[in-house]
Amino acid sequence: MHAPATPIDIDLLIEARWIIPVEPAGQVLEHHAVAVRDGRILELLPSDQARQRYRPGQLRTLGDHVLIPGLVNLHAHAAMNLLRGYADDLPLMRWLTERIWPAEQKHVSHDFVRDGTLLACAEMLRGGVTTFSDMYFFPDAAAEAALEAGMRAALGVVVLEFPSAWASDADQYLSKGLAVRDRFKHEPLLHFTLAPHAPYTVSDATFERIRTLAEQLSLPIHMHVHETGEEIERSLSEHGVRPLERLHRLGLVGPELIAVHAVHLDEGDVALLARQGASVAHCPTSNMKLASGASPLPALIAAGVNAGLGSDGVASNNRLDLFQEMRHAGLMAKLTSGDAAALPAEQLLHMATLGGARALGIEHETGSIRPGKSADLCAISLDEAETRPCYSPLSHLVYAAGREHVTDVWVAGIARVAQGNLLHLHNNELKARARLWQNQVAL
Amino acid sequence: MHAPATPIDIDLLIEARWIIPVEPAGQVLEHHAVAVRDGRILELLPSDQARQRYRPGQLRTLGDHVLIPGLVNLHAHAAMNLLRGYADDLPLMRWLTERIWPAEQKHVSHDFVRDGTLLACAEMLRGGVTTFSDMYFFPDAAAEAALEAGMRAALGVVVLEFPSAWASDADQYLSKGLAVRDRFKHEPLLHFTLAPHAPYTVSDATFERIRTLAEQLSLPIHMHVHETGEEIERSLSEHGVRPLERLHRLGLVGPELIAVHAVHLDEGDVALLARQGASVAHCPTSNMKLASGASPLPALIAAGVNAGLGSDGVASNNRLDLFQEMRHAGLMAKLTSGDAAALPAEQLLHMATLGGARALGIEHETGSIRPGKSADLCAISLDEAETRPCYSPLSHLVYAAGREHVTDVWVAGIARVAQGNLLHLHNNELKARARLWQNQVAL
Repeated sequence: MHAPATPIDIDLLIEARWIIPVEPAGQVLEHHAVAVRDGRILELLPSDQARQRYRPGQLRTLGDHVLIPGLVNLHAHAAMNLLRGYADDLPLMRWLTERIWPAEQKHVSHDFVRDGTLLACAEMLRGGVTTFSDMYFFPDAAAEAALEAGMRAALGVVVLEFPSAWASDADQYLSKGLAVRDRFKHEPLLHFTLAPHAPYTVSDATFERIRTLAEQLSLPIHMHVHETGEEIERSLSEHGVRPLERLHRLGLVGPELIAVHAVHLDEGDVALLARQGASVAHCPTSNMKLASGASPLPALIAAGVNAGLGSDGVASNNRLDLFQEMRHAGLMAKLTSGDAAALPAEQLLHMATLGGARALGIEHETGSIRPGKSADLCAISLDEAETRPCYSPLSHLVYAAGREHVTDVWVAGIARVAQGNLLHLHNNELKARARLWQNQVAL
Repeated sequence: MHAPATPIDIDLLIEARWIIPVEPAGQVLEHHAVAVRDGRILELLPSDQARQRYRPGQLRTLGDHVLIPGLVNLHAHAAMNLLRGYADDLPLMRWLTERIWPAEQKHVSHDFVRDGTLLACAEMLRGGVTTFSDMYFFPDAAAEAALEAGMRAALGVVVLEFPSAWASDADQYLSKGLAVRDRFKHEPLLHFTLAPHAPYTVSDATFERIRTLAEQLSLPIHMHVHETGEEIERSLSEHGVRPLERLHRLGLVGPELIAVHAVHLDEGDVALLARQGASVAHCPTSNMKLASGASPLPALIAAGVNAGLGSDGVASNNRLDLFQEMRHAGLMAKLTSGDAAALPAEQLLHMATLGGARALGIEHETGSIRPGKSADLCAISLDEAETRPCYSPLSHLVYAAGREHVTDVWVAGIARVAQGNLLHLHNNELKARARLWQNQVAL
């Protein structure tokens, strides 16, 4: 007989009734545990074995909970949380030109972005989001907020041809943005993207610089593409081709492209995205609320295009809620395809996790529960009147539960939410700051 | 000088930062209070005046909350809560014939309906719903559950030509259902409807009896109508006319009709519903999830048709969540009309309250905060990171907040939820019963 092996010291062991690791696809494990050391996932194994093999510094035993990878919000303008509900139920152009742009022009500053992003981080963490991909002015302020919140973020080096409080022209957007990257690039939780705003706000010359930088620095390109029909009309009249074709000729449609919205796509667009290995950031709530239209998501996925989910900014949503985006992506796909089997729950969860991580080029780091990855995790209680009975935890995740059932969130192995409460951010202070901004904006 | 008037004794005074009474339309009151006596709303007035005028047995001071009328779920199959998540992501006919119908055939009984409806009442009350309109077998069991929960319910006298555990033929459905009404008709919280299942499951002869009964007993007629395109094809081939036209010829399209779903409507259908003063029960989530299609709701409302909102059963939703239905009705209308201004928040709240009450013929009793009506009320906290800042409580109600922010619910002046917790139903007991049923159904 062997002597029992000595238990291995680890930092954290999380046991749950159900674990859905996302990889391999479709797997739902029961009574398993995740062993965490130095912020990384060491092993995923049956709970009874885990208790013999490991001696955890901390043990978290979740009852009728489901543990999933932390959610990835693939498209946000986090600082806009300070404009939540400032304008709704207006036609798109009136909403933008009469309400949102004037408010931004008047108020956006380093402090606005820092406070708004912190408020957004609080909302996202409590809702199980551990990574967000952001596009906004003052990315340095957003980086500070993400670090304070302890969230993983992919910050966009935003580029426009138009001046703002942040930069005066495309050159300055790029130089200031890349300086932010240089300042923060050694932070393990911070990642960066090049974020040209959209084909209609960026010139060919700037796109050429962006393509070169993306190659040199191995950065994804995060951009609004084909959000409205009008954008396509305009490109046809100004450039003689659809925006995606123009981007393709400029060398920007490749595995590094994250095409945000990607609503108005013809068969050629879908084939191009698939052939070039590009990703899409699907934002179903925003697309419905602004009446932008419905992405042909089932066709994109059938063609092999990688897809993630984004909330967009709260001004057009008005929640940073990836549970909602999963549900809305599924419901919208079923409605517009006429097929109730379109986009089943498993695919929706994949989009909200690994699909988003892959689009950002950080699938080695997050997006599924696999040994070696960062321990970015989210636990949801299914032990509520609203989630009983439970025949399928996967179905409940998408169709019955919501962010309100999130109990615990870890980023890189550090607990950021426990029993539904934020651990490091101070709710009352955040709300007080939001109130101060409200008084200014509502003036 | 006058001596100050003696304060009037009342049972309950509720003060809130905001009150949206729904009538008059668009009104948002600040720092007002609702005085309640004998279960009824006595007055709605500024808080400072209320404290002078009334001496309340109980005072509830809500901080940054919004008080609204209790929500009305105009279409549910409450007992189906026991089948939540039992089958999803399947084409409609496979979902029905392979999963839902066999499960119902095997398990539906008086106890199933009572336990399932209680579970549904717990979910609905916690989510701010004070009235639900139900269509299911064993309406006596549903009545018992509603009374135990202390909810207002409009119970359907369900009628089909096919046998079930509840009744063997249309005659028996009617006689047993009307006997249930006789037994419970003196309960102030219980109302009744005649509930023929659908045009394709009920014969002309039965419809004629239902029309006569509706007139004699002044009961609404609660029926699935034009849910799928297939139903219309079938009616055209069997009856030579569309289902609504057939119902009209039988005298069933009038102010008493609640046309549930009403998805596939041509211009003639819309005009007919409007001319005859009928109501629709719009079920946006169910219509999307089952890929039934999109109701032309903006056109119905423009034509003057009264509309309420329904969850349908959780098997096709999977939440009994009127906040979700408001949001989905708005998002779907904006998407399908291409107009971001379609169905603004104010109209959505009207549908979820007074529109539903009017359809049920109980607008004298509930659906708005007016003196004389029953004190059916719901308070929502807007003091969360997810609801800050707050430029418009009406926008937040629909687009940012959710049922998870409901703190207090009163039905006829009796508190049923406080601080987000059910007061009279025992959550653990309900969940244990759900688990027992799950074990049977999953066998």
